Amino acid sequence: MALIVQKFGGTSVGTVERIQQVAEKVKKFRENGDDIVVVVSAMSGETNRLVELAKQASDDQPVPRELDVMLSTGEQVTIALLTMALIRRGVPAVSYTGNQVRILTDSAHNKARILQIDDQKLRADLKAGRVVVVAGFQGVDEHGNITTLGRGGSDTTGVALAAALKADECQIYTDVDGVYTTDPRVVPQAQRLEKITFEEMLEMASLGSKVLQIRSVEFAGKYNVPLRVLHSFKEGPGTLITIDEEESMEQPIISGIAFNRDEAKLTIRGVPDIPGVAFKILGPVSAANIEVDMIVQNVAHDNTTDFTFTVHRNDYQAAQQVLENTARELGAREVIGDIKIAKVSIVGVGMRSHAGVASRMFEALAKENINIQMISTSEIKVSVVIEEKYLELAVRALHTAFELDAPARQGD
Amino acid sequence: MALIVQKFGGTSVGTVERIQQVAEKVKKFRENGDDIVVVVSAMSGETNRLVELAKQASDDQPVPRELDVMLSTGEQVTIALLTMALIRRGVPAVSYTGNQVRILTDSAHNKARILQIDDQKLRADLKAGRVVVVAGFQGVDEHGNITTLGRGGSDTTGVALAAALKADECQIYTDVDGVYTTDPRVVPQAQRLEKITFEEMLEMASLGSKVLQIRSVEFAGKYNVPLRVLHSFKEGPGTLITIDEEESMEQPIISGIAFNRDEAKLTIRGVPDIPGVAFKILGPVSAANIEVDMIVQNVAHDNTTDFTFTVHRNDYQAAQQVLENTARELGAREVIGDIKIAKVSIVGVGMRSHAGVASRMFEALAKENINIQMISTSEIKVSVVIEEKYLELAVRALHTAFELDAPARQGD
Repeated sequence: MALIVQKFGGTSVGTVERIQQVAEKVKKFRENGDDIVVVVSAMSGETNRLVELAKQASDDQPVPRELDVMLSTGEQVTIALLTMALIRRGVPAVSYTGNQVRILTDSAHNKARILQIDDQKLRADLKAGRVVVVAGFQGVDEHGNITTLGRGGSDTTGVALAAALKADECQIYTDVDGVYTTDPRVVPQAQRLEKITFEEMLEMASLGSKVLQIRSVEFAGKYNVPLRVLHSFKEGPGTLITIDEEESMEQPIISGIAFNRDEAKLTIRGVPDIPGVAFKILGPVSAANIEVDMIVQNVAHDNTTDFTFTVHRNDYQAAQQVLENTARELGAREVIGDIKIAKVSIVGVGMRSHAGVASRMFEALAKENINIQMISTSEIKVSVVIEEKYLELAVRALHTAFELDAPARQGD
Repeated sequence: MALIVQKFGGTSVGTVERIQQVAEKVKKFRENGDDIVVVVSAMSGETNRLVELAKQASDDQPVPRELDVMLSTGEQVTIALLTMALIRRGVPAVSYTGNQVRILTDSAHNKARILQIDDQKLRADLKAGRVVVVAGFQGVDEHGNITTLGRGGSDTTGVALAAALKADECQIYTDVDGVYTTDPRVVPQAQRLEKITFEEMLEMASLGSKVLQIRSVEFAGKYNVPLRVLHSFKEGPGTLITIDEEESMEQPIISGIAFNRDEAKLTIRGVPDIPGVAFKILGPVSAANIEVDMIVQNVAHDNTTDFTFTVHRNDYQAAQQVLENTARELGAREVIGDIKIAKVSIVGVGMRSHAGVASRMFEALAKENINIQMISTSEIKVSVVIEEKYLELAVRALHTAFELDAPARQGD
């Protein structure tokens, strides 16, 4: 008998009919003898409806405390509906808001962080044979103010509850049946991964794979809560995200290939090669609230250097303007940029123990005549920036080169 | 400087635009130097929407505890919107749910009763110059479960808060500009009353005048909270409902004329005139959950008697069936009934000290050739049942007979 925390997002509970399906699923787990805590989001569309009302009432500047009072009602409706649907099926169940649990957070309205979870009531209910249905995304601060956790907050609630209850697994139900070696729309031979480590999942997520929120993966890794990604309405084992257990030697060198087209590249050329120049360039960018992703600075020649970084495409024009000013101040030669780029990354804890992973990647790209514009690496990831039009070609070539294609791998 | 509790119902906060108007009104009171606590209902339509969802999720049998979790979100949205609208206008404000205040109730979900109100937070906020916006209709029981007070619950919340805070006045904003001597749609000369006593208001409400919920009037009377009925969006002093202060001798004998067409009449004829027969007749009616209003039994002749009572028209057929059974058991002669009846009542604390009020009423009806079918009286009320088609005629005749008509009264 296991203790499982199951989290269902807004789409999975988007209609009463879907809530009934979720209740059926929960009932089956109960009948297997598992103890179940369910975390739910607001019905899809509800949060946007509430935000719209709030904007109307407040000239587009909703007071953060009051916005949380409103937004928290979304999940509150869902927990009641799911609990009703369970009880209707003869499954004893009880709902709790974040405040009722009590999920204590700091007072940072709209983006609060969980400080502590009181598991007393939940344990008593589980012991009494009840399914516990908890509102995701919300909590309460020490003064009794309602708080919300910000985007993806329901995943965080699920993981935090699993950690507090020392659950055997935290299951995140989504609209995909697991984590894939890469996007199946780009590479039809992409395969569902049985397992992936927290670190790999973090890299995949930060590189554009949208299955899970980064924050919940970090949280799960920190408290070593086994996470499982599953499809809400299809059967299947999904993908287990867990710690690296030094698997068999058959472990693939890389687990997946991530990519995104959301970035743009900016270069400031002919910058005087003096100490502090990197800060002089990036300080104003950061001050303008623009996040920078990859940064490359090459060795200088003729006492000047070129400095390149990537930003989100939406920030491209703002960043360019900031950079033009900086260029004038520093007496740099020019600012050039390009939005038609893509970032492709290979991710895998296996590369730690395998030399030459990067060169194998570069070789595969070279074979396809794809020019590499920027390179950045971490312990379990190599990312390159290439011309956008080569994206699909690059991902497919890498998927094959690293033996991730479904039939090839099976025959390995 | 006064402390005023203001309650706005669902129609008054039915759209964001109306919420803005409410905020303007509250702001004006603040600028007069008053301390304000506002109680709001759910936006009109919202409660019905939630009930509909709950029914869908639970085969028309929503679990009471979970229904309260859902329904309480309606007011929670409104308090946040109104607070935002106030802050946008530069009026410091803060919202509280029933749980946050803390409005402690018993655990009777869907129809809870308020046990205690913690006024600590509210007083601190008022002292700090903030308008306090409280969710009506809801509370929390001693175990932390969310409860709702049932129909008209927001009025009750308003009165209870006014009592707890010893407010100078509890203002109930509605879609009428006060309490009238009778329905102006029937008698164009009907006049707004400046004042009315709690007892009179209770009789008016129980007799079909829908301005206030009976429960909140009882509550206000019990704690002697001056209640004022006002129009949400029109200026005007409204009607003050307060204790009987033994006014000047000019006090009118009766304050108003109430009526309703919701009742039907049933008579069981030729019942043996023996002890316990009333119980034998009404026991089964009550057991069928049918409420009985007026009851009349005349003196017996030939050892049998006739027994007549009124029920709500919706219950007429059910009551008739119950009565047919009873008639067979008791060996009564027959059961007859009539749904085309109306009840007309005169109400006024003045009649306590004036003899002959009833006969003046009967005289006025006789002059119009209106036959009286049933009579029932209380200390401050006389009700008669007449044929429905004479209703308007009777009300107008009584309005004139008791000198309530606007021009006549002014000339008095």
